[in-house]
Amino acid sequence: MAAIAGPPSASAEDSAKSLRWFDARELTVEGKGWTNTLAFFDRYPAKAEELVRPPVWALSHDSAGMAVRFVTDAPAITARWTLRKEALAMPHMPATGVSGLDLYIKEQGRWQFAGRAPARAVTNEFSLIHNRAPLKREFILYLPLYNGIKALELGIPGSAHLEAAPLRPQKPIVFYGTSILQGGCASRPGMAYPAIIGRYLDWPTINLGFSGNAISEPEVGQLLAELDPAAYVLDALPNMTTAQVTQRIEPFVQTLRQAHPKTPIVLVEEETYANARFVQFQHERCVRDNAALKAAYARLRKAGVKNLYYIPGDHLLGDDGEATVDGVHPTDLGFLRMAETIGPVLRRILK
Amino acid sequence: MAAIAGPPSASAEDSAKSLRWFDARELTVEGKGWTNTLAFFDRYPAKAEELVRPPVWALSHDSAGMAVRFVTDAPAITARWTLRKEALAMPHMPATGVSGLDLYIKEQGRWQFAGRAPARAVTNEFSLIHNRAPLKREFILYLPLYNGIKALELGIPGSAHLEAAPLRPQKPIVFYGTSILQGGCASRPGMAYPAIIGRYLDWPTINLGFSGNAISEPEVGQLLAELDPAAYVLDALPNMTTAQVTQRIEPFVQTLRQAHPKTPIVLVEEETYANARFVQFQHERCVRDNAALKAAYARLRKAGVKNLYYIPGDHLLGDDGEATVDGVHPTDLGFLRMAETIGPVLRRILK
Repeated sequence: MAAIAGPPSASAEDSAKSLRWFDARELTVEGKGWTNTLAFFDRYPAKAEELVRPPVWALSHDSAGMAVRFVTDAPAITARWTLRKEALAMPHMPATGVSGLDLYIKEQGRWQFAGRAPARAVTNEFSLIHNRAPLKREFILYLPLYNGIKALELGIPGSAHLEAAPLRPQKPIVFYGTSILQGGCASRPGMAYPAIIGRYLDWPTINLGFSGNAISEPEVGQLLAELDPAAYVLDALPNMTTAQVTQRIEPFVQTLRQAHPKTPIVLVEEETYANARFVQFQHERCVRDNAALKAAYARLRKAGVKNLYYIPGDHLLGDDGEATVDGVHPTDLGFLRMAETIGPVLRRILK
Repeated sequence: MAAIAGPPSASAEDSAKSLRWFDARELTVEGKGWTNTLAFFDRYPAKAEELVRPPVWALSHDSAGMAVRFVTDAPAITARWTLRKEALAMPHMPATGVSGLDLYIKEQGRWQFAGRAPARAVTNEFSLIHNRAPLKREFILYLPLYNGIKALELGIPGSAHLEAAPLRPQKPIVFYGTSILQGGCASRPGMAYPAIIGRYLDWPTINLGFSGNAISEPEVGQLLAELDPAAYVLDALPNMTTAQVTQRIEPFVQTLRQAHPKTPIVLVEEETYANARFVQFQHERCVRDNAALKAAYARLRKAGVKNLYYIPGDHLLGDDGEATVDGVHPTDLGFLRMAETIGPVLRRILK
């Protein structure tokens, strides 16, 4: 998190390739809510191991939403990284999204895709970008969505400079949710919807997506309340039963509200699934869950909770049914549509 | 290709699950340009083994663009299929797209995503859709994009009916091109852009995408000329050098034109790549290739070739740089954008 990365250590020299290597931990790392973590790229603090259910703890090692920001004039950038898990891909999500790295460059005030590094093994070395004009620019490198990072270094030619990007003044937006929020099934880490929104707003984000396990438990609410974000976005419905929505959403929101009297809290409905028209029972559950969320929202408002926002799920994925890989998990197409709906709401709130 | 599939053979009975199995070859198979193929789901005729380069022949076994159309009232549809290759996925493309099946249903005149079957092994059995209202509807099942099919059966509950969908009156649209056309990197087979266009126009299509090997060889032009399509779409530039574009496009088009004096032929420019702004040499090559295509187009027009159309590449992938997985290969987001540009051009031509 140092503002300027120190000079690379002698052992990090790669004389064969004349690359100088920089440890990502010494650059500006975003998407990390806690510093007191067991491993550096963990999403929950070490104490959470005793607090949350084992699958939540296991998923907290995934580096979803974490990103390394740096400034360089290097004509080429190489990444070398070691993953936590040997499962590099999922049947419906490629290794580029599960275990790969994704680089964006800031050009004329806009974040633009610049290159990606696919994972082919637990340890990888891959050229993210090369033959670039050697202009000093800011970059953001998104880390794997469904794998964890044991080590990550960036290598540049010996004559170039690389330093940590300046810390941003904004408090991050904290997103809490399911496999969808965690980024399943983006083609690369930068296409998870919180990441797209982060670029759209040019704002730091924290991704607390826990695949299959976002059931808004009280202990998770307590953990989230420890953070001090610009806004909370709660998008957990797809993992919850209707009864859980009715029972848990209000106390979860109240926990956050007690810790942060004025922080905006955004409730997101469950997406109407792409194949809902034909899988009736699934559609009915979705409608029921959303009705329960709307009722909880009404009760919270009636109880005097301010700065509470509500995003309907009907058009989150568009209206053509094309936006998912499996009827549930958005592809990049679905994530862009989600970001195009949720992003402008956040822009208005944060103004 | 029979209009009505015969009753399932006794050996195809799966009494354990009470499913009746139908061989896909006895249903209506689209996307197959030739009947005299070595294996049923090959894209080129058997004789092509002697005519085309070995990598082209190898790729012709991939079932890209093939689709099985049928009508059923079954509340559930299960697929059982055996693939040709053990490589189920690619680092930047999931197994659902490389080796999976993708089901659409026709509802109120529109094709809608209904379910997918991911590949987890060389032989798979997976429920494509279940708990569906038992209404008689037409379905289309897209086959793997980067793998081949050795065998494919569809299973339905014993009390339901399933038959081949009626043959469509239209001649197919033939697409010739690269890895992009073949569907790299769609999340599932129905999101390759020729498939999206096929649904948009409700029109049969043939996908002759050959990853890395669409260099418009004369022998490939001869093969394509054997077909009698409603239109040819030529989208091969990304695999060709500028010199090849200059030398080969005109004779390729003339070969098709001599065989089919009036069939529309659409030339598609190379997409301006997502990261072209930062990878200058790649952008320059793209501009050069497109200029060579435009010059070839002008010479063909001057030579009196009619019914020739031209689609510029500048906005094929949109303008935000978000539409690819790696700067080159579109995701579903990029493919939808390509279909939204090329589809309406074909609609006007085919009216």
